[in-house]
Amino acid sequence: MSKREFVVVGQDGADACCPGLLGAPLGEERAVELAKVFKALGDPVRLRLLSMIASRAGGEVCVCDLTAAFELSQPTISHHLKLLRQAGLIDCERRGTWVYYWLLPEMMNKLAGMLARPADAVEVVS
Amino acid sequence: MSKREFVVVGQDGADACCPGLLGAPLGEERAVELAKVFKALGDPVRLRLLSMIASRAGGEVCVCDLTAAFELSQPTISHHLKLLRQAGLIDCERRGTWVYYWLLPEMMNKLAGMLARPADAVEVVS
Repeated sequence: MSKREFVVVGQDGADACCPGLLGAPLGEERAVELAKVFKALGDPVRLRLLSMIASRAGGEVCVCDLTAAFELSQPTISHHLKLLRQAGLIDCERRGTWVYYWLLPEMMNKLAGMLARPADAVEVVS
Repeated sequence: MSKREFVVVGQDGADACCPGLLGAPLGEERAVELAKVFKALGDPVRLRLLSMIASRAGGEVCVCDLTAAFELSQPTISHHLKLLRQAGLIDCERRGTWVYYWLLPEMMNKLAGMLARPADAVEVVS
């Protein structure tokens, strides 16, 4: 089968959410974008940081609390947080001495929708 | 806040599916396992391969069809497929000359559930 026989998703700019990875072959450009986000999640420290931020009641976490939970230097934690931020998964704001982080749920919803079976995608993305 | 103040998920072996990344901080061991799978997804060629396999009607794709869709050598494609297989995302079987690949939906469901908001997780994992 040649490349042309695949119906390619993500080459018409109208693929903001669906049909996801499981519905139709992913276009090259969209695959590059999406791979960056999965790469950001492909590290245990970053996954734990994201999970700590995402699950915090109140929605915000001080970088001081995040650093205290790991046996890693603050610059290392800050580097991991920067990669999560560049991937669009979290955002932050400096207030006085400390930086505060929070989850950007849109990107998480988008990823969950991309990975869900087509029948489930509406439930996850909505 | 010290490390002990976080309620940690994934350290009692009873966390097969829930509450996911967003429900409670992820345990170290589980983060290591999960990061391996996300790392496998953190490459555009692997995402496109996975998507081609997952979206194929009939459920199986010959490696010959996958290779034809990329301008990459067969050993390169095979290497990417091996990483997806090691991550538990796909499986394969040799039949005569060719190897045939198919999706392992359990892992995709698990990942989608991990990324979904707690209220959505049941919908995705079920």
